[in-house]
Amino acid sequence: MRIALGIQYDGFAFSGWQAQPHGNTVQDALERALAAFAGMPVQTHVAGRTDAGVHALGQVVHFDTPLDRTDYAWVRGVNAFLPKAVAIQWATPVSGEFHARFAAFERTYFYMLYAHPVRAPLLEGKCGWLHTPLDVAAMRAAVQCLIGEHDFSAFRSSECQAKTPVKHMYAIDIGQQGHFYGFRFRANAFLHHMVRNLMGCLVSIGKGRQPPGWMAEVLASRDRRRAAPTFMPDGLYLAQVGYPDQFRLPPPNWAAWPYPMPWPT
Amino acid sequence: MRIALGIQYDGFAFSGWQAQPHGNTVQDALERALAAFAGMPVQTHVAGRTDAGVHALGQVVHFDTPLDRTDYAWVRGVNAFLPKAVAIQWATPVSGEFHARFAAFERTYFYMLYAHPVRAPLLEGKCGWLHTPLDVAAMRAAVQCLIGEHDFSAFRSSECQAKTPVKHMYAIDIGQQGHFYGFRFRANAFLHHMVRNLMGCLVSIGKGRQPPGWMAEVLASRDRRRAAPTFMPDGLYLAQVGYPDQFRLPPPNWAAWPYPMPWPT
Repeated sequence: MRIALGIQYDGFAFSGWQAQPHGNTVQDALERALAAFAGMPVQTHVAGRTDAGVHALGQVVHFDTPLDRTDYAWVRGVNAFLPKAVAIQWATPVSGEFHARFAAFERTYFYMLYAHPVRAPLLEGKCGWLHTPLDVAAMRAAVQCLIGEHDFSAFRSSECQAKTPVKHMYAIDIGQQGHFYGFRFRANAFLHHMVRNLMGCLVSIGKGRQPPGWMAEVLASRDRRRAAPTFMPDGLYLAQVGYPDQFRLPPPNWAAWPYPMPWPT
Repeated sequence: MRIALGIQYDGFAFSGWQAQPHGNTVQDALERALAAFAGMPVQTHVAGRTDAGVHALGQVVHFDTPLDRTDYAWVRGVNAFLPKAVAIQWATPVSGEFHARFAAFERTYFYMLYAHPVRAPLLEGKCGWLHTPLDVAAMRAAVQCLIGEHDFSAFRSSECQAKTPVKHMYAIDIGQQGHFYGFRFRANAFLHHMVRNLMGCLVSIGKGRQPPGWMAEVLASRDRRRAAPTFMPDGLYLAQVGYPDQFRLPPPNWAAWPYPMPWPT
């Protein structure tokens, strides 16, 4: 039987998603808890291998198991073995054609920024922080060139293992509410550090250090050295993974998201 | 010269406010940073000595110093020496009659709860968590008996050092937005564990385990054994301290508060 899970985690508690010998990753914690509940080793496959410090609201995982348990038993049973920084939100049986990574056609990331002259201890690790406000109109103008299918090599880290730098960006939405700035990125897939590299350029433009048209120059160059430095991971969330309707996955649980969502739903 | 500071901190990073030999308290961190900036020892006085795990949005502190620095220099200079879990939000010179603790006539606490069948890793330590929704009308009815001057011994921990258990409760507001429940408590002062003990009783009433009238019975008993267990500290915030207008203190900086405020302003 193949089971899909929706999971959330605080990325600052882990050294990224992917299993490591030191064992301090989300995958390590999840597979230990699944094994404890199932009484046998369980191997997981994930939709998006997030980096250290990157959070998840709507990460999706699948695994195969001979066990027959209710959806609720998987959620409550495995959560009892998980550390506080990670929790399964839903579990559902899926057909054997489902694959958390290869069946996904869309990933949505949120980036949340707090702009204030003084840092906010209670947002530490959860939001990026800037001293000064940003120009939303300039940033919105800048991202227009990114929509569609492009070679995103200029925003790709040197450690990226993707087969191709060509990705399809479906939409980028940017909004402001009070001292918070929210960014939503939707694409078929993302390169390593791509959102954080895009954020670095957007912040440069939002601060007026670069004109909106600079984004198109950086994109066209395909040269990582032309882009801004990689922005801090603190406010980055894997918010949702999109699959064809035939798999009937539940939506991500955003009930616990306390920040503004200043974009169309 | 006497300086007042408005500070915020994440209570889970510290063993409470008050200085301890182990040095892992907010007061220890603040006095170390003030001494590093001032080049001499600095002794602080605080409005509310919060417990381990209790956060502050609007804590107020004062200290005396021979140094003449701008308000901005105190904020930026001392914050550079503070750990990420605490930050000064404002600094202002005050007259010698000001005292952070004894001049305060009102303390405001917020308690934020998340009610959902599954726990939320990204709210860990920041909000209390309940599996099930609460009856807001029942809780609002229950708190009416608490308004005014009362002997709050039934909600006082055995370690409380207050001179009197009689406190004046000005207002209690309760509201709901989505899966969040917000509670605001305003009183001249609070006993040790008083808000957490009131929250324990309110949650019992909100779940329907006790009728609203039970709160008045517990209050009248003055017996700690009659009240519910002390509720978790996770969602408790010292939000504001009120002083006479003559001292002209800045308001607390709530710009970074991401949760609903479901009560009248």
